[in-house]
Amino acid sequence: MKNYITQAPWSIVEEGFHRDFNEISESVMSLGNGRFGQRGNFEEKFTGKTLQGNYVAGVYYPDKTRVGWWKNGYPDYFAKVLNAANWIGIDIDVEYESLDLNQCDVREFRRELNMQEGYLERSFIATLKSGKELQVNAKRFCSIVDDEAGAIRYAFKPLNFDAKITITPYIDGSIRNRDANYDETFWDEVRKETGYGEAYIELRTRKTGFHVATGMCVEIEQDGVKIDYQSQPIKYEKYVANRMTLDCRQDQETVIYKYAVNLSSLNYDPDTIFKEARQSMQRVSRKGFDKMLFEQRQAWADKWKMNDIVIDGDVAAQQGIRFNIFQLNQTYTGEDERLNIGPKGFTGEKYGGSTYWDTEAYCLPFYLATADQKVARNLLIYRYKQLGKAIENGRKLGFRAGAALYPMVTMNGEECHNEWEITFEEIHRNGAIAYAIYDYIRYTGDEHYLVDYGLEVLIAISRFWSQRVNWSKEKSKYVMLGVTGPNEYENNVNNNWYTNYIAAWTLRYTIEAVAKVKSLNPDQYADLIDRIHFREEKEIEKATHIVENMYFPYDPERQVFLQQDGFLDKEIMPVSDIPKGQRPINQNWSWDRILRSCFIKQADVLQGLYFFEDEFDTETVRRNFDFYEPMTVHESSLSPCVHSIQASKLGLRDKAYEMYLRTARLDLDDYNNDTEDGCHITSMAGTWLAVVKGFGGLRIEKGEENHSQLVLNPYCPTHWQALAFKIRFQGALLQITTTQLDVVIENFSSHPVTLLLFGQSVTVNATSQEQVSISPAATV
Amino acid sequence: MKNYITQAPWSIVEEGFHRDFNEISESVMSLGNGRFGQRGNFEEKFTGKTLQGNYVAGVYYPDKTRVGWWKNGYPDYFAKVLNAANWIGIDIDVEYESLDLNQCDVREFRRELNMQEGYLERSFIATLKSGKELQVNAKRFCSIVDDEAGAIRYAFKPLNFDAKITITPYIDGSIRNRDANYDETFWDEVRKETGYGEAYIELRTRKTGFHVATGMCVEIEQDGVKIDYQSQPIKYEKYVANRMTLDCRQDQETVIYKYAVNLSSLNYDPDTIFKEARQSMQRVSRKGFDKMLFEQRQAWADKWKMNDIVIDGDVAAQQGIRFNIFQLNQTYTGEDERLNIGPKGFTGEKYGGSTYWDTEAYCLPFYLATADQKVARNLLIYRYKQLGKAIENGRKLGFRAGAALYPMVTMNGEECHNEWEITFEEIHRNGAIAYAIYDYIRYTGDEHYLVDYGLEVLIAISRFWSQRVNWSKEKSKYVMLGVTGPNEYENNVNNNWYTNYIAAWTLRYTIEAVAKVKSLNPDQYADLIDRIHFREEKEIEKATHIVENMYFPYDPERQVFLQQDGFLDKEIMPVSDIPKGQRPINQNWSWDRILRSCFIKQADVLQGLYFFEDEFDTETVRRNFDFYEPMTVHESSLSPCVHSIQASKLGLRDKAYEMYLRTARLDLDDYNNDTEDGCHITSMAGTWLAVVKGFGGLRIEKGEENHSQLVLNPYCPTHWQALAFKIRFQGALLQITTTQLDVVIENFSSHPVTLLLFGQSVTVNATSQEQVSISPAATV
Repeated sequence: MKNYITQAPWSIVEEGFHRDFNEISESVMSLGNGRFGQRGNFEEKFTGKTLQGNYVAGVYYPDKTRVGWWKNGYPDYFAKVLNAANWIGIDIDVEYESLDLNQCDVREFRRELNMQEGYLERSFIATLKSGKELQVNAKRFCSIVDDEAGAIRYAFKPLNFDAKITITPYIDGSIRNRDANYDETFWDEVRKETGYGEAYIELRTRKTGFHVATGMCVEIEQDGVKIDYQSQPIKYEKYVANRMTLDCRQDQETVIYKYAVNLSSLNYDPDTIFKEARQSMQRVSRKGFDKMLFEQRQAWADKWKMNDIVIDGDVAAQQGIRFNIFQLNQTYTGEDERLNIGPKGFTGEKYGGSTYWDTEAYCLPFYLATADQKVARNLLIYRYKQLGKAIENGRKLGFRAGAALYPMVTMNGEECHNEWEITFEEIHRNGAIAYAIYDYIRYTGDEHYLVDYGLEVLIAISRFWSQRVNWSKEKSKYVMLGVTGPNEYENNVNNNWYTNYIAAWTLRYTIEAVAKVKSLNPDQYADLIDRIHFREEKEIEKATHIVENMYFPYDPERQVFLQQDGFLDKEIMPVSDIPKGQRPINQNWSWDRILRSCFIKQADVLQGLYFFEDEFDTETVRRNFDFYEPMTVHESSLSPCVHSIQASKLGLRDKAYEMYLRTARLDLDDYNNDTEDGCHITSMAGTWLAVVKGFGGLRIEKGEENHSQLVLNPYCPTHWQALAFKIRFQGALLQITTTQLDVVIENFSSHPVTLLLFGQSVTVNATSQEQVSISPAATV
Repeated sequence: MKNYITQAPWSIVEEGFHRDFNEISESVMSLGNGRFGQRGNFEEKFTGKTLQGNYVAGVYYPDKTRVGWWKNGYPDYFAKVLNAANWIGIDIDVEYESLDLNQCDVREFRRELNMQEGYLERSFIATLKSGKELQVNAKRFCSIVDDEAGAIRYAFKPLNFDAKITITPYIDGSIRNRDANYDETFWDEVRKETGYGEAYIELRTRKTGFHVATGMCVEIEQDGVKIDYQSQPIKYEKYVANRMTLDCRQDQETVIYKYAVNLSSLNYDPDTIFKEARQSMQRVSRKGFDKMLFEQRQAWADKWKMNDIVIDGDVAAQQGIRFNIFQLNQTYTGEDERLNIGPKGFTGEKYGGSTYWDTEAYCLPFYLATADQKVARNLLIYRYKQLGKAIENGRKLGFRAGAALYPMVTMNGEECHNEWEITFEEIHRNGAIAYAIYDYIRYTGDEHYLVDYGLEVLIAISRFWSQRVNWSKEKSKYVMLGVTGPNEYENNVNNNWYTNYIAAWTLRYTIEAVAKVKSLNPDQYADLIDRIHFREEKEIEKATHIVENMYFPYDPERQVFLQQDGFLDKEIMPVSDIPKGQRPINQNWSWDRILRSCFIKQADVLQGLYFFEDEFDTETVRRNFDFYEPMTVHESSLSPCVHSIQASKLGLRDKAYEMYLRTARLDLDDYNNDTEDGCHITSMAGTWLAVVKGFGGLRIEKGEENHSQLVLNPYCPTHWQALAFKIRFQGALLQITTTQLDVVIENFSSHPVTLLLFGQSVTVNATSQEQVSISPAATV
């Protein structure tokens, strides 16, 4: 835990330069616009501790995998997020001295990520070895209005000298991924060009052949006036720059405007991308920094209008939740169905791949409730488009007849992960993809999605489950052997309750979906089953038999579901019995000891009870929570949120708040000692869930005539004065504000919304609000 | 399967050059003397398919490990057998043409490994591109009399030309391991020297700092007379050579004698090793090729006198068993307790490490029965000396108070393997090390080994088992969770029957051993328990409780032991149900599919019934054999031998012979398509076991007054006319010859031996023989 970040409701602020934490600051101050992004690196040269990182969405490299002993079925490569050309660089040389904060005294250092307006600002006074003092103010952003553009305003002022100052704005593509398995470079140069105050470079990824064209152009002001300058073009391998030497007087401010564009071959023909980059550059520089920043402010204001969460009475909590929402919005905008939510977003390059089950299990509800419906829909379409590769993946592992196993980690639909116990066995991910279809339709009411895309995916996944189970003569039940559940501190177990449950649920839902699609659009249904050779009667019969005869491990004595077969052979003990100094166990215990212990990394049975809450009574949830919660070490960032939601539901408000705290400031406080690698983007959605589904008690239930019904059971944690969150629901925008005493629901939409508040039907009229007092009886 | 090797009783012969199989031939024609060895590479340059391999026993390199995701407890490095300096090289240039069998026509090619006399010979006629024909005969060996020495006689004759022929005998240390994880070189040069017709080089391994000094000296004969020559010294980085240009006439034979010495810092001080190498070289060259070869013949004849197996009526089987015995003797001589039996011996570099549980489980009985008692004892001492590191390894994984976990793979006692399911979980290896102590004492009667070394190891291993089990409230038994048994097609299972059994057995044997040592030598016992803080009462009480309450999975219906918990949840089916073309499953099925299947890689429950045969009645063995054998795919080279022995015991002679065939010619026929990487040295001991313990029915049982009793129940497989094998037993050397009709036992020792033959006590007098007819009743 670190707490050098200044608490502020709308900003992430570093006061004073924390050299040793610089990589942490770089992570949390990352900028992104869904299309590209970069860590909070310095523009000028820096020889201290830093991870220079620039990333372009959807551009990846198939790094050769590194394994101990090769197992059949392993993928040959691991798609890595690529560290791409650095476009922010501006070297500053004062006569013969480089400005390098690692080599000079720094005072009045301040770095601020302004989340309200979406920019990063940094200011400091540096005293060079020669005694010269230079004051700098740098501000930059990645535009969310024009997602090909970035802009920097870099201002400096000599405080105690006159001198010639040389500036070298550059684009540098000679970068390596820190996590390259064999220390290879992943980019080749295609072409480059430098002109007066501008430069362009086009790079191509090896193997995958993505092209990225990056351009820059530079304007300089002195005394508030744009000046002409001499520009010396510089070209090295994968590097272009312009060098200008300026006469600078004491107390005179020089301002460099550096504009950049980043175009990738996801959107442009490689043959013309270089030309297009020049055209984009013209468009951007013509608009200018101030106008771009003005638009940026407005666009962010619009976003916040839709999804801000306000916490009164706790600045740390306020900052934490806004940080999470901000980063989620920077990472994924939902504009492009080929993109997804990488585990580190644009804040780092660790893990590689861009898509985990996190997307469906944790992120989807956030985008469902805070963004246009098409955003969540695009997340589903992403998987739909990769169905072919999921079927291919299934075939590779020995499954037949169109059975799909979606990958554990992917960039383009192909599996990237290779640890057998995960890649081949953590198959519950397949269920999450089915569940997301259900979740989306439940929330949006968009049943036609099932007709057009959903059913095809459901059938393919169900085919997998039907083949993956086997009949146990011993148990006279279907069993599922050799899986890893969400709790990755158990590997290769039999009959993981969660996996068995979600498998059986998928089969049930597919059977319902078949009937639904048949009735909604018989022709399209007929086309589909013909195309995918769906033998309706036989496959449904098999699925039904499995649903009716699936085995679920259960302890009749405690009346709890068992995480897997044999769980009770373990020494059952609470986390509190782990000797001091031995946590986190994944940094202190050998792997076999972790596996043999009863300790749970991440909600597993409880994850199932969270997904399928409707199917269990509250006392069942309580018994399982009481059994499993004390054994859970929450060493996955995705765990505490689920526990927090369950605790809220069970009225265990202190526990709910404790669990919420573990997620809310995970990166800001560097809770797991790994923020320097980048932020935990997907778990940020978990924090949002803990607030909205936990404290807010938001649920979607089947109401009259099978219509989705919005349900709210909000409360305000005792530590706070008020909590306000916004949600979209089927065309309406609502704000729910909860204090200790009452709940106010505002309806910003033009039609009335009826919902269930504390079990009572409440109608909130168009553009009005309802206030309801909280009685003690309403709280659980 | 390939069968290009000519069948011959005493030789491995390749007739005609099989270019595509060259790496296979190189493997099977490897030479070794326990101290160093090399693959059957060519002396002259060869640009075709080849794995150049020279190896020096005990000299290893800690290569950085390659893993997917790091797990706590993994070792940082993997000790690799090192490809060392090539001392056999002799380049031959005929004017401007190199002799290179990849670049010319080759006829009358013949390569022969003579196992009776211990040398490799090769002859051929090569037609160079110019049309020049050169006849070559090359013979070489690694001396088992002087284990620092090797010698080559390389003779060539121009058949249709006169020419100047340049020869370049060299030592080349600029080698890389083919299996280097990061393609690094492992050797640095220390010094080198060239003189007239001689050259020396000293290399040092990086990190481990082993020194190896290699020297060569060259003599040349023409027309049967030693000649003087001009010698041009050549030195490159890690390379020394002499170049001589000789006038050669048509039909005139030129003979090069190249002598070499290989000294390692295991036996010499690095400061003087270079000088010592020169002295050794003098000794060797003074002796000369013919005398060395004569001694080599005699020494091999002595070895064969002790351990030959004769099979009448089946040349392929005869060749196969002799090949196995020959390679085992080349790999390990038992002279040096720091050495062990590498899985590839000196025939290749795959796998790395030198010591697996193969040593104790498979190889020990071979050396016990065919070599001096000290050989087997040295194998035990090797582990005794590594006890400290095994305790350190246990501590690293969280075990305390002197609990030892011996490594899965090691060179110097440290763990080298890193796949968690093996490294941390395949802990039954610990039991095999305890069993080997029991096996050795049972065979030799050397109970003082227990006093001096054995008990200390047993207590440390027992401490591990006592901590590794846990009490299951559910079962009211001790359970052992998260293990991998000998059948590596199951990972991370609970209560593997074999592991639970050998753990409980170790505890039992340790309790007995404590009592034995106390009575044999109370003072030494007192010293020991003081030194290792053995709390006798408490530790024995705990051990006894575990022995009495260990859980063993069992199927009461079939009355078989269950390989592990949940085994009966699998779809039970025979190997014969695997569709054609899908075997071996490890090359055709994904890893998860293999894990979920019932198919068994390697004897597991049956391995336990083989080790602890005395503790089970024959019908129990039969039921388990009948249950497991049909599910066993034998995709480990160590599996069929155990099944063969059990089948022999159960009178299933066809099955016994079928299983024997799978091991006997594994490498010669390239059964697993991997002989090119090197031979399966340790499984060769398994073949010997199938003959001697299977067909021969050799057992050691407790006889009168607790003395070991030699038991024989031999038979001759119907395919053979006679089978004769030799064994040593407590000072006596016996030969047992079995035909279809009778058994003849010869006693070569000077005292009478009493043994149990077909259940009858038989005494064979000193230096005489007994003949017993086989009645049908005696056969089972």
